[in-house]
Amino acid sequence: MESEDQLVQRTGRAIPSLNGGALRLGIGDDAAIIAPTGRLEWVLTCDQFLEGVHYLSDSHPPDSVGYKALARATSDIAAMGAIPRFFLLTLALPSDKTGAWFDAVLRGMGRAARLMGMRLAGGDTTKSAKVSISISVLGEIAPGRAITRAGARPGDIIYVSGKLGRAQLGLELVRSKPDRLPRFRRVLRPHLYPQIRLKLGAWLARNRVPSAMMDISDGLSIDLSRLCGASRVGARIRASRIPRVAIPPSVAGRFRSLHLDSLQMALHGGDDYELLFTVPPRHVKRLRRAPGFRELTPIGEITRSKQILLVRNDGATKLLKPGGWDPFRHK
Amino acid sequence: MESEDQLVQRTGRAIPSLNGGALRLGIGDDAAIIAPTGRLEWVLTCDQFLEGVHYLSDSHPPDSVGYKALARATSDIAAMGAIPRFFLLTLALPSDKTGAWFDAVLRGMGRAARLMGMRLAGGDTTKSAKVSISISVLGEIAPGRAITRAGARPGDIIYVSGKLGRAQLGLELVRSKPDRLPRFRRVLRPHLYPQIRLKLGAWLARNRVPSAMMDISDGLSIDLSRLCGASRVGARIRASRIPRVAIPPSVAGRFRSLHLDSLQMALHGGDDYELLFTVPPRHVKRLRRAPGFRELTPIGEITRSKQILLVRNDGATKLLKPGGWDPFRHK
Repeated sequence: MESEDQLVQRTGRAIPSLNGGALRLGIGDDAAIIAPTGRLEWVLTCDQFLEGVHYLSDSHPPDSVGYKALARATSDIAAMGAIPRFFLLTLALPSDKTGAWFDAVLRGMGRAARLMGMRLAGGDTTKSAKVSISISVLGEIAPGRAITRAGARPGDIIYVSGKLGRAQLGLELVRSKPDRLPRFRRVLRPHLYPQIRLKLGAWLARNRVPSAMMDISDGLSIDLSRLCGASRVGARIRASRIPRVAIPPSVAGRFRSLHLDSLQMALHGGDDYELLFTVPPRHVKRLRRAPGFRELTPIGEITRSKQILLVRNDGATKLLKPGGWDPFRHK
Repeated sequence: MESEDQLVQRTGRAIPSLNGGALRLGIGDDAAIIAPTGRLEWVLTCDQFLEGVHYLSDSHPPDSVGYKALARATSDIAAMGAIPRFFLLTLALPSDKTGAWFDAVLRGMGRAARLMGMRLAGGDTTKSAKVSISISVLGEIAPGRAITRAGARPGDIIYVSGKLGRAQLGLELVRSKPDRLPRFRRVLRPHLYPQIRLKLGAWLARNRVPSAMMDISDGLSIDLSRLCGASRVGARIRASRIPRVAIPPSVAGRFRSLHLDSLQMALHGGDDYELLFTVPPRHVKRLRRAPGFRELTPIGEITRSKQILLVRNDGATKLLKPGGWDPFRHK
């Protein structure tokens, strides 16, 4: 059996973690030391990824576990418009998960760290019956430029990036047919290896375009209600405008029993990590220069009344109940 | 059943978390925003506290769980000589642990936060079968003043603060007789509510007294071997000099079957959170002005050979095997 110190060494080899630049001292001591660079502000967040809650140990490939644990945590940094720099990794592992499985987790996490330009600054490892991964991320941003959830005003246009429900579709496939995964690699990718909108988030903050912003991690319906709650406003969105996952015929045919509904997945599916942001009408023109502008869709507008309304395809308007993922509300 | 958002609100009420000063934006948004104060460096660490691993749910009072989870994590900040400022709280809770039990946990954590002058900057909450608490702490220190594990040189004097083995004694009592806990409140305190040596650590760093420093969290024998490993040196310590827990006669009498040995507990017991540091002979005089100087004990010296040697009471010298707590080596 390896010691904790040996696990730390293996982790340091698999994930970018060299000292240098702002990272004065990284893994291996009591704590990391980070020097402020210029007058930037730090943005700090944490997230967890648990066996049996956020992934299924017999269905999800281990490199996806490592990749996604870091990507999810970093999405909150993108949602502020900041640049991620360093992360802390807190691991609890069963003894039988410290070998090849763990190496694959580290490989996935190392790939995510390189893609997003992040370095491991420290961590803590212990043993437990189930795998638990907690990650804290430190990012930086020019003073006063971070975009919070709290600035949306009546009349602002509500935008989302990308297509919603893609991760939910992947999750449905994983849950139903773990043995057929390789066939549906493209459909599964958004669920297993989500792309974080770092460039878009940073561009929006740098150019002060949005009045409020967050990432869609639990589902559009619940996350929009959180943004509106923080801003003390309401919203009216149109079902017909919501950019949603395309269900390939091969999937629809094979998984008919799942009754896949792309609007429901787009409204209530979690794990997409797309950006949800509001733009004052006078700033809308500027958006055209945003990286990936074509992937941005206006889905409605902020209202004075505090309700969240959905205008259906038939023209009827109904209250949109937050139906996304809340671990304490769903069984 | 409460929602995750409601749990976050309760947490924010129980633990100091107001925005202000360097904390531009605290709990409730995607991430916290922290402004650098002057030219200070940040010190960053994380730690976890798990049900069944770090505490026993039927023996440990919940306010101790909250207090100790934060105190442990903060000890790594003291061990660098830094001042703790902010922390992130990552929680996984079973549904039946979100009520009164959780309020008591928050009470204990709030008390620890106030005692140590810390504010909650953010967090993440989800559901799981067992309680898991992960904490990341952000502290600050003047540039270049942090004391790492890596600076010990042959001839330096090895010091420890306080008495070692006190937490281990408390743990033995908790393990053996949970029903008699109230009687032994004083003996249990170091195990349930450890004091973190923040003042001493900060004074030592500010005055550049130690050549190397760390906290004793897993046990003197393993932590000394880590300090020596990082510094590429060895050590010779004297059993007779090691300040150790006094076992009260009432405890010794009642728990004879435990074969309590204060030297073994002082050498290999974890959870004391005392400071272990090395001082070049020319700096020893300065130590007299340290806060709590009388609680500091020289226990030996750093050597060129890389062995860790224990000089026993009978004068014989033996290799000291690291015997402290390593979750992956035991059982």
